[in-house]
Amino acid sequence: MNSNMDELQQSRVRSIFDNANFVIDLGLRLTQIEDDYCETVLIPGDRHRQQHGLIHAGVLATMADHTSGCAARGAVGLESDVISVEFKINFLRPAIADRLRCRGRVLRAGKMLVVCEAEVFAEKDSEEKLVSKAMVTLAVKQLSGPSS
Amino acid sequence: MNSNMDELQQSRVRSIFDNANFVIDLGLRLTQIEDDYCETVLIPGDRHRQQHGLIHAGVLATMADHTSGCAARGAVGLESDVISVEFKINFLRPAIADRLRCRGRVLRAGKMLVVCEAEVFAEKDSEEKLVSKAMVTLAVKQLSGPSS
Amino acid sequence: MNSNMDELQQSRVRSIFDNANFVIDLGLRLTQIEDDYCETVLIPGDRHRQQHGLIHAGVLATMADHTSGCAARGAVGLESDVISVEFKINFLRPAIADRLRCRGRVLRAGKMLVVCEAEVFAEKDSEEKLVSKAMVTLAVKQLSGPSS
Amino acid sequence: MNSNMDELQQSRVRSIFDNANFVIDLGLRLTQIEDDYCETVLIPGDRHRQQHGLIHAGVLATMADHTSGCAARGAVGLESDVISVEFKINFLRPAIADRLRCRGRVLRAGKMLVVCEAEVFAEKDSEEKLVSKAMVTLAVKQLSGPSS
Repeated sequence: MNSNMDELQQSRVRSIFDNANFVIDLGLRLTQIEDDYCETVLIPGDRHRQQHGLIHAGVLATMADHTSGCAARGAVGLESDVISVEFKINFLRPAIADRLRCRGRVLRAGKMLVVCEAEVFAEKDSEEKLVSKAMVTLAVKQLSGPSS
Repeated sequence: MNSNMDELQQSRVRSIFDNANFVIDLGLRLTQIEDDYCETVLIPGDRHRQQHGLIHAGVLATMADHTSGCAARGAVGLESDVISVEFKINFLRPAIADRLRCRGRVLRAGKMLVVCEAEVFAEKDSEEKLVSKAMVTLAVKQLSGPSS
Repeated sequence: MNSNMDELQQSRVRSIFDNANFVIDLGLRLTQIEDDYCETVLIPGDRHRQQHGLIHAGVLATMADHTSGCAARGAVGLESDVISVEFKINFLRPAIADRLRCRGRVLRAGKMLVVCEAEVFAEKDSEEKLVSKAMVTLAVKQLSGPSS
Repeated sequence: MNSNMDELQQSRVRSIFDNANFVIDLGLRLTQIEDDYCETVLIPGDRHRQQHGLIHAGVLATMADHTSGCAARGAVGLESDVISVEFKINFLRPAIADRLRCRGRVLRAGKMLVVCEAEVFAEKDSEEKLVSKAMVTLAVKQLSGPSS
């Protein structure tokens, strides 16, 4: 994994993936972390579909939320964690894809709140199309105690 | 299942569940359909959790989106289907629950767009708390052909 | 003005109106305050219109945001103030009205964040229609010093 | 005004400004139009403020909505008009500015819906800061008759 971030901070971001059952089960993989930026990939299968055979809005929303959380987590430093307050997502095109790639970036990292945006791209036949865009607000939580 | 809706329309709403792999896999169950209203239930398990042991935002978002879709589907009539355009969801409290219940209702059903709201309640120790609230915009799609 | 709220807290909520040039200039009036609830009224005129003669989305958004702010301000106590973090608003019907009435209520008041919803109703020919609905997230700010 | 757009289409976008009382009254000015892009400027004054002396959220929201509407109007062609369905806006920093500049761009222009994003920048002491970001969904309306 390509990153300029220091190893300890990287491991904190990775732990958001390694300890989150729902996104592991979903098949979401972390592919890049930078300061203020995170990228994830998901290979869609039959189990991700809704009634019309398209990828379910909930899959795209989960990608956008979780990838934003990782970008935010990288921005707040070792002593803090983040938790989603709210998000809004637009579905721009039917998501038909061999691979979904989500790019999350921090728009603003404050002491109490971090605001991110996340774009989900559908890759098919070596073309990439923007299929969803989200804005995500996260609250910063101070971690305490020696083990955290 | 309790409903005043006629049987054919009910079966259309149910088919949104029966043919949607992602929500079947998630464990979401349809418990009530009325005109302009839909209710679903999910029993949270370890696989629905994020890194802090709470229910993942993506699970709550999927419930809100899909339940809204069913409420909207019930409102648009037999000749039409609906698809999510966008939604916004707020996470109001940590979702700790024996059972999650989502209530979706139609705020406005137009010819081209339907707007719904969905509330997710956490049931624990016979208490019910509002943990998330969403607003969902859906586009109406005309179905065509004899088989639809 | 009808209210169960104590007078000091009421005066704090009213001050959000009396000191906010933009909403005074807009013509927004505070008509009711309760714990967790606020109601405002605006008489639309030509200056509130957009290019099609309808009331501008920005007028409805300002009503929803400011009324939510007052409902939130009433909920956080004397030692705290609130500021908008974000909001989302849906425009459900064309706003044609003799009078617009906005009802804002608190969905969740936490220590750091308050989440409200606000509904805007168009009153015309003694009928009332829901024309917009918003969800608003506000941050709580501690006030300090004797003069605040 | 700098633009690559043809003159007739430009005049359509300008008419969204020239005929919208609320934004004229607000002081919003159109400074640039391109295909899929629009830029506006507002010089904030005392009348745009809220109770803490900051620019009111409703002013920023109106800028974001209207500028998005112009970007969308430029994208849909001469035979169509647009109307706001919903938007979501985040307030990232206190808006303290000599001048506000809003940049709206089209993320996706479909036959029925256009989705835009709009960023509002505060210019002060020759520095520019992102103070708000919005996502706006608009419906496409077919114009009819020879005069439109």
